[in-house]
Amino acid sequence: MSELEYQEGRTELDAFGEFALIDRLTDEFEPRNASTVKGVGDDCAVIGEGMRKTLVTTQTLAEGIHFDMMYTPLKHLGYKAVAVALSNVAAMNGTPRQVMVSVAVSNRYSVEALEELYAGIRLCCERYDVDLVGGDTNSSRSGMVLTVTAVGEADEERLAYRSGARMHDLICVSGDLGSAYSGLLILEREKVTYQANPNFQPDLDSYDYVLERFLKPEPRLDIVQALAKADVVPTSMIDVSDGLASELLHICKASQCGCEVYEERLPIDYQTTRVCSEMSQNMLPVSNALNGGGDYELLFTVAQKDYERVKDLEGVHIIGHVTEQGLGAVMVTPQNSTITLVAQGFRN
Amino acid sequence: MSELEYQEGRTELDAFGEFALIDRLTDEFEPRNASTVKGVGDDCAVIGEGMRKTLVTTQTLAEGIHFDMMYTPLKHLGYKAVAVALSNVAAMNGTPRQVMVSVAVSNRYSVEALEELYAGIRLCCERYDVDLVGGDTNSSRSGMVLTVTAVGEADEERLAYRSGARMHDLICVSGDLGSAYSGLLILEREKVTYQANPNFQPDLDSYDYVLERFLKPEPRLDIVQALAKADVVPTSMIDVSDGLASELLHICKASQCGCEVYEERLPIDYQTTRVCSEMSQNMLPVSNALNGGGDYELLFTVAQKDYERVKDLEGVHIIGHVTEQGLGAVMVTPQNSTITLVAQGFRN
Repeated sequence: MSELEYQEGRTELDAFGEFALIDRLTDEFEPRNASTVKGVGDDCAVIGEGMRKTLVTTQTLAEGIHFDMMYTPLKHLGYKAVAVALSNVAAMNGTPRQVMVSVAVSNRYSVEALEELYAGIRLCCERYDVDLVGGDTNSSRSGMVLTVTAVGEADEERLAYRSGARMHDLICVSGDLGSAYSGLLILEREKVTYQANPNFQPDLDSYDYVLERFLKPEPRLDIVQALAKADVVPTSMIDVSDGLASELLHICKASQCGCEVYEERLPIDYQTTRVCSEMSQNMLPVSNALNGGGDYELLFTVAQKDYERVKDLEGVHIIGHVTEQGLGAVMVTPQNSTITLVAQGFRN
Repeated sequence: MSELEYQEGRTELDAFGEFALIDRLTDEFEPRNASTVKGVGDDCAVIGEGMRKTLVTTQTLAEGIHFDMMYTPLKHLGYKAVAVALSNVAAMNGTPRQVMVSVAVSNRYSVEALEELYAGIRLCCERYDVDLVGGDTNSSRSGMVLTVTAVGEADEERLAYRSGARMHDLICVSGDLGSAYSGLLILEREKVTYQANPNFQPDLDSYDYVLERFLKPEPRLDIVQALAKADVVPTSMIDVSDGLASELLHICKASQCGCEVYEERLPIDYQTTRVCSEMSQNMLPVSNALNGGGDYELLFTVAQKDYERVKDLEGVHIIGHVTEQGLGAVMVTPQNSTITLVAQGFRN
């Protein structure tokens, strides 16, 4: 009676990466409605026939995959689930206005636990002036699955897609990279210690910054506003959810271009460097920046003509430039060798 | 380290009904954006500052809770997940235009299984001229959780909220009630037999109608169109996902009114009656209609002045009228006794 398991010709899910799988599954869908401006393949869908576009995005966080209840306070989780969805709207150079939250939970959770979760949801909504306009709570057989839908808006001429990067554009990134993943490494280390000895009290005080980066990321709507104020429209944009390398490759693929970024230009916080040196002699901070995910910074390209307008924007770093497609996506080391970028994104 | 289990003052989730829980969790949220017309508490959120409103809704289906892989073909599941979300747009008297699908799956599922799921998603999108504009696939620890976000539109003056029913309005329902739940009863019966004897081949041919009602429900967008053509705007509207009683109570609560429906007016298909008589001597078809869910018909009220316009609409049944709040929600039996309606909705 079940169609679940195909005996013949079964292809395991991990035979594809997440993005290749989505490409394959959604390949045959053709838009039919005039109001569908952009469908699958960017940070948000873009909808609407007028100048003012509506942006819609959904983001799922699943227990045991995207978060571990051992070290994720529920209030932080609620905050993060909303923040991550808002970050997708920021990544289109848009402004979020509403969110809807679907929570599937097992009866392992209490009403008080859900209230903690919603306290975090509310905090993030208030912080970013976003309205909660829908929510449903469903049972699940095990664990918690949170899906947040965010709705935002942007004027058509200010929208930034992944596909707009052009030769010689400057590549910019906000904030710093690799710190969220460093926070995760610390939490995982303490979890192992705690499991070996439940009387152990983890001392996390000295890791405040990287822990907060992982547990409570912020959507960079301040950068969207700063760009508007500076009268700059990025030629392309994406948020850094899976690590810089993966996101650069998304832009290169969508824009049919190559890119060159400079290792010494990558913004890395000293605490990220400290965590790496504590963890292992072989752990390089630049690897966390390239492949550790969860920073939710904005990666974007701007035309050369906008150099003067972006070079002094607070929290914005120019890390490289767009090249022709044939040259691929590379990082130039301080020793002037080039390393080809590969997506090894760690998905939070 | 974990905040998961509160030892003191723990309130179990089932101490609240689903709707009371959502009310409690979302109680303190206050809309801040001018574009937020309607937030939590109806079938869709209503967004937008112009005359043309955007409708947004999310709907989650979780394995083991809303569907059982033993008897749910994946193609049907994909179709149903989209259909149920579109039904929420229909329930606002709106027209759906786009959907986004989030799938969380364990590696128990193959790529081919997801392709089946997406074949159903595509079929429903094509049937209702809706564009798939986003999708993500995530890992989950166990089972499948599907969340569909639907985006639609409606002119402000044609929107139907739950809250607009007024004294003496006529109560109408489309299609027939209780057949989806009857289909579920058959599938559950065959599952038990199959588990006892795996060589057993279920004979489901004679239950085509009720099985299709459960496995492949249709959003009643034809009714939305028929009402527009008849130039009728319902004063209130909701879709029948949890059974007629539960939905009537939602309208009564939101509209601060009572209602009276007539048992002999409830549309019940003969196959529903047949399944009930097969199952048990004590199973009444009217119970399936009132409390069995998953029909996804439209329940709506219209002003008395519109009687002539709705009385002959195909597939629309007038089953009662709106009363004052103090009289509560009741069903009148053929023997002229009244039964107070209680929500026992079975959630699909």
